[in-house]
Amino acid sequence: MSILRGNAIVGQSGGPTAAINATLAGVIHGAMNSEYIDKVYGMQNGIDGLLADTVICLNDYFTDETSYERLKRTPAAALGSCRRKLPAETDAKYKQTFEKIIEIFKKYDIRYFFYIGGNDSMDTVAKLSKYTSECGYEVRVIGVPKTIDNDLLGTDHTPGFGSAAKYISVTMQEILRDTAVYTVKAVTIVEIMGRDAGWLTASSEIGRLLGLPSPDLVYLPERAFDMDEFFTDIKKILAEKPNVVVAVSEGLQFADGRFVGEGTQGGAVDAFGHKYLAGTGKALELAVKDKLGIKVRSVELNLPQRCASHIASLCDIEESFGVGKAAVSAAEQGASREMMVILRDNDADEPYSSVFGHMDIDLIANRTKFVPKHFINERGNHVTDECLRYILPLIEGECYPEYKNGLPVFFSF
Amino acid sequence: MSILRGNAIVGQSGGPTAAINATLAGVIHGAMNSEYIDKVYGMQNGIDGLLADTVICLNDYFTDETSYERLKRTPAAALGSCRRKLPAETDAKYKQTFEKIIEIFKKYDIRYFFYIGGNDSMDTVAKLSKYTSECGYEVRVIGVPKTIDNDLLGTDHTPGFGSAAKYISVTMQEILRDTAVYTVKAVTIVEIMGRDAGWLTASSEIGRLLGLPSPDLVYLPERAFDMDEFFTDIKKILAEKPNVVVAVSEGLQFADGRFVGEGTQGGAVDAFGHKYLAGTGKALELAVKDKLGIKVRSVELNLPQRCASHIASLCDIEESFGVGKAAVSAAEQGASREMMVILRDNDADEPYSSVFGHMDIDLIANRTKFVPKHFINERGNHVTDECLRYILPLIEGECYPEYKNGLPVFFSF
Repeated sequence: MSILRGNAIVGQSGGPTAAINATLAGVIHGAMNSEYIDKVYGMQNGIDGLLADTVICLNDYFTDETSYERLKRTPAAALGSCRRKLPAETDAKYKQTFEKIIEIFKKYDIRYFFYIGGNDSMDTVAKLSKYTSECGYEVRVIGVPKTIDNDLLGTDHTPGFGSAAKYISVTMQEILRDTAVYTVKAVTIVEIMGRDAGWLTASSEIGRLLGLPSPDLVYLPERAFDMDEFFTDIKKILAEKPNVVVAVSEGLQFADGRFVGEGTQGGAVDAFGHKYLAGTGKALELAVKDKLGIKVRSVELNLPQRCASHIASLCDIEESFGVGKAAVSAAEQGASREMMVILRDNDADEPYSSVFGHMDIDLIANRTKFVPKHFINERGNHVTDECLRYILPLIEGECYPEYKNGLPVFFSF
Repeated sequence: MSILRGNAIVGQSGGPTAAINATLAGVIHGAMNSEYIDKVYGMQNGIDGLLADTVICLNDYFTDETSYERLKRTPAAALGSCRRKLPAETDAKYKQTFEKIIEIFKKYDIRYFFYIGGNDSMDTVAKLSKYTSECGYEVRVIGVPKTIDNDLLGTDHTPGFGSAAKYISVTMQEILRDTAVYTVKAVTIVEIMGRDAGWLTASSEIGRLLGLPSPDLVYLPERAFDMDEFFTDIKKILAEKPNVVVAVSEGLQFADGRFVGEGTQGGAVDAFGHKYLAGTGKALELAVKDKLGIKVRSVELNLPQRCASHIASLCDIEESFGVGKAAVSAAEQGASREMMVILRDNDADEPYSSVFGHMDIDLIANRTKFVPKHFINERGNHVTDECLRYILPLIEGECYPEYKNGLPVFFSF
C-alpha cells in the first residue's frame, strides 16, 4: 500500500434518495478518522460546485456522533446535487473543464475524491480518474453508488433501494387495507417508479412472501405489456373478489416499444391546448374505466418513494453509511477508478449479511441491471418467490428520524 | 341516570382513515369493561352489514391489551365500511329498512349502538335514533366522528385529521428537501385532499411556524383561485430562488365556481376517446408549463393521506381511542342521538389538552366546517400563524405500528 496524504472532497449527484446522506455521513466519518486525510471538503451541487469553486469545509460540522446520526436520517442530497455529465475527450470543452478541476484540486490539495451517485455519476468518476492519471496529478477517485432503482451492475443492490422498497412495500400494505373496506367492485392501480428496471415495483409484492395481502397483479417494464391479457386477468380476479389492486412500473411498454403512458398522448389536448402525458397508472385507469365500466382509481406514489426518510430501511441506512466509510478505507489502501459495491455474504439458508468491496468502474458505468427473467412469472403478471427473497432482507428494520414538535429534525449545512 | 342493560353493536362507515380503528378499539374497550354491556357485536361494512345480518361477536378477539394496541395502529376500517345513507321518511323503503334494523336489534338484544363515521354517518345516527325513539325500542345511539377532512361542526377537530395532517406535514418536509437539491428553476405542485375544506392543505405549512422550510404558496378551496395572481406570485418567488413548492387543495375553484381540475376537461379526449379529468395539481402543472416554460412536476399525495398508519399522530391515535371509550361512558349515562366531540381544554398560553363531550347530532349532521376567514392571509396564498397554532398540537407525537420482517403487523378480524 502506498501512502497518500492530503485532503478529501465529496459530492452528491443525480436524483435524491432517502439514503444518499447516510453514504455522505459514512464518507465524512471515514475521512475524519483517517490518519492520511486532513481536511474534508464538500462540493455543493456535485461537479457543478467543484467547477464553480463552491466548496465548503465539512470538518467543523461533525464534532460529535449526533451530527452523523442526524445526517444519516435526512432525505435528499444535503450538499445539493446536479445532473451534469463531464465532457468526453472529443468535446471542445474537454481540456478546459478538466484543467479547471485540477486547478481546484491543487488549490485545496485534494488527494481523495468521492462521488456519490447513479450511473451518470459513475461516468464522471471514470472520466475524471482517467484524466488525472494521464496528466500525472495524484488523486484517488472513488464512486459510491446510490439509486433507488437498483439498476447498477456489479453490486448486489444499490444503497437507497432498500429504503424506497420499504416505503413502497409498507405503503402497499396500507393501500391494500384501504381499498378492501368496501364491497363495491373497484380496481386500484398503483404506479411505481422505475423507467427501465422493475425492482421497485417488484418490492410492492413482498407481502405475499410473508402471508400478508399483496397486489393481485404486478407488471414490470422488463416484460412487454399486453392490454388484452391485462383485461382478462382483471376480469378473472373480479369474479372472485370485489377489490383488485394492480402494481405497475412507470416504464411499462407495449411489445411495439410504445410506452403505456404514451397511449393517451395521441393527439389529445386539454382545454389549454396542452398535449396530455398521463403516466402509466392514469392511462390504465382510463382504459379499465372504458373497458369494464367500474370504479377505478390510480395512485402514483411519486416523490415520497425517493425521499420518505420517515420510514427508511434500517438495513439500507446502515449499509449506505458503511459503504461510505468503506470507500475511504479502499482509497486509503490505494484504490482508484473504482466503484464501491455491496456483496451478499450469506448462503441461501443463512441469515442475511453483506460485505463491501469495489470494482473497476468501466465495467459498471452507463450500463443497466434489469430484473432477470427467472424473477418474473411465466405470464408476466407477478414476480417469483426467489425475487421476493432477494428483496426481503433489504427492507428489514425501521430507521426513524428524530422528531421535535411533531416534525422531523433534518441536518443542514 | 337510568340504567340500561343489554348488548352493544359498533360499525364503521365512510372513507377509511389511519385513526378510525383506534376509535373502534376505544368503543370495544369501553364496552368490554362496562357493567351494563354484555356482548359487543360488530357490523361488517357498516349499516349494510347490519341490514344483511353480517354481524360478528367481538369479545373473543380482545382478551389482552395487545389486541387493542394492534387495532389502534391498523389503518382503514377493520370491520369494513359502506357509503349507504339510510332512507328518509318520504322514501318508499323507509319503513321496511328501519323495521329490518329493529328486527336485528331484537335478535341480538342491542341496547347500545355506536357508529363511527363522517357527515353521512351522522345522518344515519340521527335517523336511526329518531326512528327507535318513535317506535319505542329502547337503544342508545351515539355517533363518533372520524374524517381526515376536519370538516365536522361542533368538535374542535375530528379524529383522523391529526394523522392525515402528520403524514402531509412530514411528507412536505421531505418534498421540500427533495426539490431543493438542484439549482435549475423548477416548480413543484403538491395536491392535497379536501374538496370543500382546506384543513389538510393548511397543515402542509406547519414548518413555517417552527422555523423549518414550508411551501412557498398555499391555496385553499375556501378562497376563489385566481390564475393571474398565481402566475404573478410564482414569478416573484422564482426571481428570488430556483425552487418553488406550491400546496393546493384538490377542491380549488375559480371565482365562477368551476373547479381548477375541471379546466382540462373542456372537450379534451385522449387516444382512447376518454374525457380527461386531470385533477387540480395536474391542471396547474400544465398551466405553469405552458405559461412559464420551466420544469414543473405535480405530486398528488393521494391515498396515503388517509391510510399512512406508519406515521400516525400519537395525539390523534390516543384521542381517537379516548373518544371511543368516552362514547360508551356517555351512552351508559343515558346519552343518545348525540355525536361525540373533542373540546380544546387549554388557554392559549398553556400546553394543549382536550376533553371529550357530546352534542345534539341534529346540530352537526350534513353541515360543513370551513377554514375560517381569519385563518387565511389577505392575498389568499398562505394560512396564518393562528391557523398553524391550532393545527400544531394535533400532529404531536409519533405512533408507529409493530413491524415483523420489515412490514407492519396489522389487526384482522
